Amino acid sequence: MDIESGIIRSRSESAAGFFKCGWSWVKSLPGKFKNNVVEFTNKVKELGKDDPRKIIHSIKFGLTLSLVSLLHYFKPRDSSIWAVLTVVVVFEFSVGATLGKGLNRIMATFLAGALGVGAHHLATLVGGKGQLILLQLFVFLLAAASSFSRFLPGIKARYDYGVLTFILTFSLVSVSGFRADEMLELAHHRLLAIIIGSLSCVIISIFVFPVWAGQELHKLIALNIEKLADFLQGFGGEYFGNEEEGENDDLVSRANKSLLYKSVLNSKTTEESLANFARWEPPHGRFKFRHPWKQYLKIGTLTRQCAYEIEALSSCINSEIQAPLEFKKMIKDACIGMSMESSKVLQELSSSMKTMTHPADAVVEHMTNSKTASDNLKTVMKRASMLEIKTNILEMIPAATVASLLVEILARIEKIAGSVNELASLANFKAAHPAATSSPYVQRET
Amino acid sequence: MDIESGIIRSRSESAAGFFKCGWSWVKSLPGKFKNNVVEFTNKVKELGKDDPRKIIHSIKFGLTLSLVSLLHYFKPRDSSIWAVLTVVVVFEFSVGATLGKGLNRIMATFLAGALGVGAHHLATLVGGKGQLILLQLFVFLLAAASSFSRFLPGIKARYDYGVLTFILTFSLVSVSGFRADEMLELAHHRLLAIIIGSLSCVIISIFVFPVWAGQELHKLIALNIEKLADFLQGFGGEYFGNEEEGENDDLVSRANKSLLYKSVLNSKTTEESLANFARWEPPHGRFKFRHPWKQYLKIGTLTRQCAYEIEALSSCINSEIQAPLEFKKMIKDACIGMSMESSKVLQELSSSMKTMTHPADAVVEHMTNSKTASDNLKTVMKRASMLEIKTNILEMIPAATVASLLVEILARIEKIAGSVNELASLANFKAAHPAATSSPYVQRET
Repeated sequence: MDIESGIIRSRSESAAGFFKCGWSWVKSLPGKFKNNVVEFTNKVKELGKDDPRKIIHSIKFGLTLSLVSLLHYFKPRDSSIWAVLTVVVVFEFSVGATLGKGLNRIMATFLAGALGVGAHHLATLVGGKGQLILLQLFVFLLAAASSFSRFLPGIKARYDYGVLTFILTFSLVSVSGFRADEMLELAHHRLLAIIIGSLSCVIISIFVFPVWAGQELHKLIALNIEKLADFLQGFGGEYFGNEEEGENDDLVSRANKSLLYKSVLNSKTTEESLANFARWEPPHGRFKFRHPWKQYLKIGTLTRQCAYEIEALSSCINSEIQAPLEFKKMIKDACIGMSMESSKVLQELSSSMKTMTHPADAVVEHMTNSKTASDNLKTVMKRASMLEIKTNILEMIPAATVASLLVEILARIEKIAGSVNELASLANFKAAHPAATSSPYVQRET
Repeated sequence: MDIESGIIRSRSESAAGFFKCGWSWVKSLPGKFKNNVVEFTNKVKELGKDDPRKIIHSIKFGLTLSLVSLLHYFKPRDSSIWAVLTVVVVFEFSVGATLGKGLNRIMATFLAGALGVGAHHLATLVGGKGQLILLQLFVFLLAAASSFSRFLPGIKARYDYGVLTFILTFSLVSVSGFRADEMLELAHHRLLAIIIGSLSCVIISIFVFPVWAGQELHKLIALNIEKLADFLQGFGGEYFGNEEEGENDDLVSRANKSLLYKSVLNSKTTEESLANFARWEPPHGRFKFRHPWKQYLKIGTLTRQCAYEIEALSSCINSEIQAPLEFKKMIKDACIGMSMESSKVLQELSSSMKTMTHPADAVVEHMTNSKTASDNLKTVMKRASMLEIKTNILEMIPAATVASLLVEILARIEKIAGSVNELASLANFKAAHPAATSSPYVQRET
């Protein structure tokens, strides 16, 4: 009983509280609205500064839409509304996505229109009540089958929108009560409207400040490799406390920079959708027909696997247990050498992708250097254990872990190098300039 | 010249090859088609066995669509086509997604319709050429602003579809050449059609074999924790080669099971979209109003961070460098104890989520056990270094790394336990049954 009355009391209290809250909420609305507007404007500014292409995209979209709706104004017809509708749903940020959706829409409308007219004709032949039942059966069967096919990953990735348009058009056509000749007329006009809408989107998105999904993917993968390089470059200094290296501000900015690798951990979805869009795109810039987009996904996966090890390494920096200073000092040079050289390998790979040249000999050079550093590390550790610090292996574990993770990271970087090399052959990258071998950093500035 | 003629030759060759290929492609079409059909059927069977709810969803969708199109058949009207259209685009796999899209569609149509009628009215007041210019300006401005707002993460996550519908409806209404009274009539019918379409979807998806996004999220997070537990349970045996444990078949199936954790690494996107859908859902089953869905994302992130360490640990199993047997033997019991106890902590947390009871004291117990095991490990390692293996610290590194990663994993598991506890308080989980403390496995069987 006590509990029950308690519940009732708390309920009536909460009801009173609710109305009180409600009133103060209403009173605060104008202020909230103003805050929201200010917040929204700030977000827009931020987003615009971050990536001006998003603003350009919005303007492109607005222009295409008012252009197509102008068409409707001058030639008002029921079907031209479908051109406007098409622009709204088809226009996407990248060329590949727009082209993919446009082609999907056109093909699906055509196919579903034809099938719909056929189904309608068939049903009319039966006539009477059978007509209705047959049509409903068609709609049910095709809708269920198409909706199920959207669960298949291959269809989901490339034809999802097509399947949606297919169901839509088929059910609209087959249930509409038109006569066959009216229907053909209608289908013809509607298809034309959809083609006009899709074409406008494709043309604007290709010729006005195009955003190519393929190029985005290419840049993203190169950038992700660079992010790992940034971490490894900063790691030595951060773990072993090498303060001589630069100004304090410089150190802070480098520390922030070295945290960027975290985004690599979750970039799988983005990479996959970009690769799907890229496959719709025509050759552009340095990307030829049948550019090996799948290879990018492979490099992306290997990069992510390297990032997982780096995540484990990064938790060593913040670990409570730290190795004794004298031991740390002994392995410091070898570890820093190793992470610096690994970082240079990644930088070379990234810049080789950016400039689309075959990875220079510098990659091999730095790879060899890191392996030498790794051997050095082993020698140093052997000496350390034999000479001074026999007593406490326990305290050496954290630093030993760092060393062992660095070795594993090196192994994963070698795999990345292998798959970037493969990409270079598949996509016919330029041969590395001979001069680049002696001075590998020349490339990056071009 | 040589190169050029080579290119020309290779081109004509490739043209001939192209036609040859083309013909054999055409010849192989019927066979290919048959293969495709067989492949598709197999995939459908597989997918259906894997998750029969997908088949049920397709049937639900087909039924809803033919139901709504039946409406069009009996009351043929231009606007009832919009009900059919609404069903196709709004019906989604989970209740939350369907409800979110339906509400978005209704609200956006209402808002855009009202604004469109207003814009049209305003433009008519101006009249003449000004009318056209003003309308185009409205369409351009609203389209650009809405399309930009879709880049904001908060809007993208919950209102993306609403913004799309808004642009669509606004441009359709404002450019249509109707008189104001006709337009109100039209808007009224269309809104009604959209409400009927959305309601049919929502009702069918809630009352016929509902798939709740919230429940899916809940199950996913609990399952992910269990996957990590499975890995840790199998790890000791796999790394230290404990063959006594069971039959060979059993070992293989366990090894496969322990690889399941890899899916946790990339589950962020799925978790986030499920959480977004869940927020649209009404209270259902054990999930009350304002269930703390955000807390699931927090647990998900911590689980993933633990999975990254596990990924590093798993690469130790396959590492070429292995610690000497005698040293491995020394730390074996402590390491196995640690990973087994950690696994039990995770299992307890997962089952506490599944049964929605407060984590039992068993969690604390296993946590303490793993910490004891961790202390044991330290003692063993100290002894090892002092007694026998003074000479070669280098060879001890791999095993030391395993130990150190296990310690880090334990720290991350503690964080997961903390956030599951937080969830239990936020979501008012049942108190753990007193009996459960003495026998923590009783719960799981209920």
